[in-house]
Amino acid sequence: MKRLNWGMIGGGKGSQIGPAHRMGAQADGNFALAAGALDHDAERGKAYAAELGVAPDRAYGDWREMLEKEQARENRVDLVTVATPNSTHFEITKAFLQAGFNVLCEKPMTMQVDEAEEIVAIASSTGKICAVNYCYSAYPMVREMRQMVARGDIGKVRVIVVNFSHGHHGDAADADNPRVRWRYDPQIAGVSGQFADCGIHAMHLASFVSGDQVRELSADFASAIPSRALEDDAMVNFRMEGGTVGRLWTSSVAIGRQHGFDIQVFGETGGLKWWAEQPNQVYYTPVGGRTQIIEKGEGGLSGEAARLSRVAIAHPEGFPMAVANIYVDLAAAIRGEPHGAFPTAEDGLRSMAAVHQAVASARQAGAWVDARPPSLR
Amino acid sequence: MKRLNWGMIGGGKGSQIGPAHRMGAQADGNFALAAGALDHDAERGKAYAAELGVAPDRAYGDWREMLEKEQARENRVDLVTVATPNSTHFEITKAFLQAGFNVLCEKPMTMQVDEAEEIVAIASSTGKICAVNYCYSAYPMVREMRQMVARGDIGKVRVIVVNFSHGHHGDAADADNPRVRWRYDPQIAGVSGQFADCGIHAMHLASFVSGDQVRELSADFASAIPSRALEDDAMVNFRMEGGTVGRLWTSSVAIGRQHGFDIQVFGETGGLKWWAEQPNQVYYTPVGGRTQIIEKGEGGLSGEAARLSRVAIAHPEGFPMAVANIYVDLAAAIRGEPHGAFPTAEDGLRSMAAVHQAVASARQAGAWVDARPPSLR
Amino acid sequence: MKRLNWGMIGGGKGSQIGPAHRMGAQADGNFALAAGALDHDAERGKAYAAELGVAPDRAYGDWREMLEKEQARENRVDLVTVATPNSTHFEITKAFLQAGFNVLCEKPMTMQVDEAEEIVAIASSTGKICAVNYCYSAYPMVREMRQMVARGDIGKVRVIVVNFSHGHHGDAADADNPRVRWRYDPQIAGVSGQFADCGIHAMHLASFVSGDQVRELSADFASAIPSRALEDDAMVNFRMEGGTVGRLWTSSVAIGRQHGFDIQVFGETGGLKWWAEQPNQVYYTPVGGRTQIIEKGEGGLSGEAARLSRVAIAHPEGFPMAVANIYVDLAAAIRGEPHGAFPTAEDGLRSMAAVHQAVASARQAGAWVDARPPSLR
Amino acid sequence: MKRLNWGMIGGGKGSQIGPAHRMGAQADGNFALAAGALDHDAERGKAYAAELGVAPDRAYGDWREMLEKEQARENRVDLVTVATPNSTHFEITKAFLQAGFNVLCEKPMTMQVDEAEEIVAIASSTGKICAVNYCYSAYPMVREMRQMVARGDIGKVRVIVVNFSHGHHGDAADADNPRVRWRYDPQIAGVSGQFADCGIHAMHLASFVSGDQVRELSADFASAIPSRALEDDAMVNFRMEGGTVGRLWTSSVAIGRQHGFDIQVFGETGGLKWWAEQPNQVYYTPVGGRTQIIEKGEGGLSGEAARLSRVAIAHPEGFPMAVANIYVDLAAAIRGEPHGAFPTAEDGLRSMAAVHQAVASARQAGAWVDARPPSLR
Repeated sequence: MKRLNWGMIGGGKGSQIGPAHRMGAQADGNFALAAGALDHDAERGKAYAAELGVAPDRAYGDWREMLEKEQARENRVDLVTVATPNSTHFEITKAFLQAGFNVLCEKPMTMQVDEAEEIVAIASSTGKICAVNYCYSAYPMVREMRQMVARGDIGKVRVIVVNFSHGHHGDAADADNPRVRWRYDPQIAGVSGQFADCGIHAMHLASFVSGDQVRELSADFASAIPSRALEDDAMVNFRMEGGTVGRLWTSSVAIGRQHGFDIQVFGETGGLKWWAEQPNQVYYTPVGGRTQIIEKGEGGLSGEAARLSRVAIAHPEGFPMAVANIYVDLAAAIRGEPHGAFPTAEDGLRSMAAVHQAVASARQAGAWVDARPPSLR
Repeated sequence: MKRLNWGMIGGGKGSQIGPAHRMGAQADGNFALAAGALDHDAERGKAYAAELGVAPDRAYGDWREMLEKEQARENRVDLVTVATPNSTHFEITKAFLQAGFNVLCEKPMTMQVDEAEEIVAIASSTGKICAVNYCYSAYPMVREMRQMVARGDIGKVRVIVVNFSHGHHGDAADADNPRVRWRYDPQIAGVSGQFADCGIHAMHLASFVSGDQVRELSADFASAIPSRALEDDAMVNFRMEGGTVGRLWTSSVAIGRQHGFDIQVFGETGGLKWWAEQPNQVYYTPVGGRTQIIEKGEGGLSGEAARLSRVAIAHPEGFPMAVANIYVDLAAAIRGEPHGAFPTAEDGLRSMAAVHQAVASARQAGAWVDARPPSLR
Repeated sequence: MKRLNWGMIGGGKGSQIGPAHRMGAQADGNFALAAGALDHDAERGKAYAAELGVAPDRAYGDWREMLEKEQARENRVDLVTVATPNSTHFEITKAFLQAGFNVLCEKPMTMQVDEAEEIVAIASSTGKICAVNYCYSAYPMVREMRQMVARGDIGKVRVIVVNFSHGHHGDAADADNPRVRWRYDPQIAGVSGQFADCGIHAMHLASFVSGDQVRELSADFASAIPSRALEDDAMVNFRMEGGTVGRLWTSSVAIGRQHGFDIQVFGETGGLKWWAEQPNQVYYTPVGGRTQIIEKGEGGLSGEAARLSRVAIAHPEGFPMAVANIYVDLAAAIRGEPHGAFPTAEDGLRSMAAVHQAVASARQAGAWVDARPPSLR
Repeated sequence: MKRLNWGMIGGGKGSQIGPAHRMGAQADGNFALAAGALDHDAERGKAYAAELGVAPDRAYGDWREMLEKEQARENRVDLVTVATPNSTHFEITKAFLQAGFNVLCEKPMTMQVDEAEEIVAIASSTGKICAVNYCYSAYPMVREMRQMVARGDIGKVRVIVVNFSHGHHGDAADADNPRVRWRYDPQIAGVSGQFADCGIHAMHLASFVSGDQVRELSADFASAIPSRALEDDAMVNFRMEGGTVGRLWTSSVAIGRQHGFDIQVFGETGGLKWWAEQPNQVYYTPVGGRTQIIEKGEGGLSGEAARLSRVAIAHPEGFPMAVANIYVDLAAAIRGEPHGAFPTAEDGLRSMAAVHQAVASARQAGAWVDARPPSLR
């Protein structure tokens, strides 16, 4: 098993998501960081790349240089991770895909729906991997829920309730802190604040676990901190293709909720509950029966959950290993081996459509709108 | 301290709410069960009354007989509890109030908004007590939250999220069980199913804790079990008079949620969380600080929470004692002693308006409507 | 059903356990407070009795007066609750039993083993009820555990781990507070501090749930606050008659544990876990299977647990209702009706023997000693 | 930053601890697997090494071959991890240390106290690193507790309670399963079963968090499954050098406890609680105050906890990252950079002495014995 060559764009020193990608890519020995354009400050990026063990000739000043020079190499990187500011995801992902690279893009994949449609088309025509890092879908116990739903353990899904609400932007005195402010600035964040930032993780998970897609939605947006041009609290009701009722609440002013990402799935014959802060357990209640605690690593898990459980039962696994699970399947896909599902450009496209349609609904006092991208209606 | 004479209508053998009222009324020795019309089957009602120690001449066959004969007594009951089927609450409460009795009515106080307006008017003109059993407001830790909000511990309230979702009506095979079916039958339950049954507890608690009232709302209703004419799952977004954003989810098909009543209150400088299944703790997070666990019975609680804490810290108190707390304040009010607040006919009226307006909104695809009763706009 | 006459000794204004007894005795309408000697200050006791509705001629100055005058009445009290300082339990209980009263005594029943033997003998010869308030045994879910063990759900019990550890005596600066100090003063508390105060509740529960008795023990006592003459932290290993291994930890300096009473029972084919602070759930794990959450009030509970569940599933019940459950069975026993078990003088005797033997063991560096009273070896 | 060369002995295909070491060593890019003798079956070990990317000439048939050939290389491995069966740890560790390699040994470091003394002496004389994988000490929140104790946040530590009790060997029908049986076979496991397997993790953590050492102990061992020659349930009371009282319970028949490793530390002015199954929170209660939840990744953590927090607050981190934290500090130490503490041969020696002395105590009915190794008395 040869280690694959991995390249990273963004994720420089002090970045929050950078370390998660590095741990994720390296933990299983599948990828070695071979190239990078890690920082918009070229010198800082090169210095940090060196620190991380990248050879000097593959520590690039920017992504265009990296694209040009990697293209020219024989041992070009097998996978490029894009972890730059959101507004640049589209052009970087597009360029690398077109040049024949496999790409893992941070969410959101694009800022516009038509951009997302374009990425989907390019990925399809080139046959290259375009994955999007909806990494919560790679927790073993999320896979277990998906499998339980798929094999009918809880019957037809009636209602899904999914929340992704934290309080880390709840301090008005801190609202002008640049690290926070940009998320509510339409010039930078686009049409949506909290829903685009966290809500789409929640909506993706609802689809992933149920195996169904959101068809229409109605949104209520609020700026709890009034100076914000974009929403910091949103409720989105939705209906899925199969008729499932959805309730999605996302907030960044929910002080006391630390991460605040949970999902509840209620079917005809049972209910499921999972919480991203304690991700190694699923609570399962068969109708008329007692709640059971399903543990990561226990005997009898589904194939996917068992495959992605890394250490023994009740030895907790966390966020870095969820990201690592994405890389496990990317490595297998790149090598042409059998592999599990990972979130793709189509997921990124659906998210972008949902964001724009939720904004449209909220502007029309919650009118129900089609949540789907034009190409997938 | 003389024990007060207490009368009960409904709450017969096998009733679910009857025992809670009896424990609540008797636990502190304030009330003795002196009279009752406990069952629509007159003989069964009298027999059960005798079993409970009611004298034969005050064990009545129906509420009309009780009204007539109690009126004629010198030692007439000091308080009448109405725990009959919902559709009869209005006429019984009205009749007893008009005859000069104090009444504690189970929720919902009426089926119609104009009926509720009428009760409010009668209570006001007679000067008699008309209380409604929103007993969750009487948990010590709910009082603590209300006091914390009132004194500004969390600043202006931005968002309230309140859920009352259980799964006990989630079994379609059981949907024709008469104990379940009536709740979704418009002939018996009226215009609303789950929202009228549980949602109004949640909405009352949002108002009680915040000290504010709901001004407008938008509702999304669903019948997850399709044969149901009324909703078994509802999402209600609302705005309060002071601008607070509200999110209320209620469901009876949420399999795995046993009682499922919780409230989260997010203000400018902190957040609060309480759960009716574990009611002796409040989770409080000051902005930028750590979550603290406030315990019932701990030193330094507010006056109301301390007054209503009955046994030492971490000796749990539950639902029966919450009901008892309502009776404690009713007894004091009847005796003309200082007492704490209890939910009144005005609360009952607001609930009824919210129910009818939520139905109206749901029928108009979630259009925003005024949630208030005509007299309180 | 006639209400029984109830008398109380101790439990005056401001007492901690008094209210629990009053709520417990009255909640179900079985007992009416008819007589009392509530306070060592005779006038204060009479005034408080009047406040609680006791007739003036049955508000007594002390227990001797009460004994004398109640004996002379035709409608003498049907049950006397003894809630005085520990060192007086023996003589009061003995006197009332000998005079033919039924007695519910707070724990500890006596200070000495021979006193306890005497009480057992008197109760046996008079045929009167002598109950001891080990009220944790009356929680519905504790009854469920007992029944599960009895019917073999977890097989032979191998290991029981029971803790009753709180931190409310952990502040050295508060150690001279009279409310705290007496518990560690041999002149008042006797031979043991924390083990006699809380440990015996834990040991009783181990016996109650397992249906077995402690045969021998080895104790390690410590005074974490060195000025204390008696232990504030103790570990007691024990073996039961049937071979079960026991681990009992009790502490009053465990800062952060509020009530801290929990029990774990491990058998050949399953394990059980219950926690007094959240008493409405039992966690049950069959060997090789998943943990299940058993809820108070759920369908299919054992007869005893169902009988003592008062309100619907997930409507929590707490400490006052556990005490009330003791009174329910006492009332039935007094009336000669079928009733469940309640803790008796024999339980009080076994506790007293365990206390004295644990002290003996601790003084001999943890030597194993017989834990049983002489009469029960 | 050059990647270090890492070698592994044991941890072959299907091993439980092998993957944790590989993730731990690789996640941060500090180590690359360069050499290995992964399996007692030479061919299988070589094949697996190849699969993991080890060059053919460094995939060895056994540890002796690896020792000989690596010694001869210029780019010999910078660190050897020993993850073989327990009884071989001593000779392998000793041989590599003597040859000048740095070693990370799985626990237990040796089977005998004198062997452990020898390893300590060799490590000291060669100046090479000899670490032992007490990896729980590397969780960020364990570091936070250690720091809180060290800076006096809870005052002098009075009592430590530490449990490591699971139920995975609780099925008697499975007791002959070779994977389970060897742990209770003195020929393979040595003098102790469960205490040597899990108890020493607990005892190490008590020392690590308190910054103190165990001086004397008293043990009660039981074989809950009677056919076992070694204990599967043990209680160890201890006293530390500074006078702290210790309570340690370890069991492998505690059905329903999955991992079951928790620690409670009670000091003069506060208490701490941590649980390895939910490792990202510490519960801290100042005396007389409320319990606070300290979160991994929150602002204001101590330097060590902040340094070892890898992703944002409430993004959980688990067991693999705790192991990775050990490797982070080993890499820094090997490079001669500043680094945090890691468990060393001295810790391994103390554990071995505690095991043998606990056995001696248990055989003498719990007599108190000196817990320290001869060289550290």
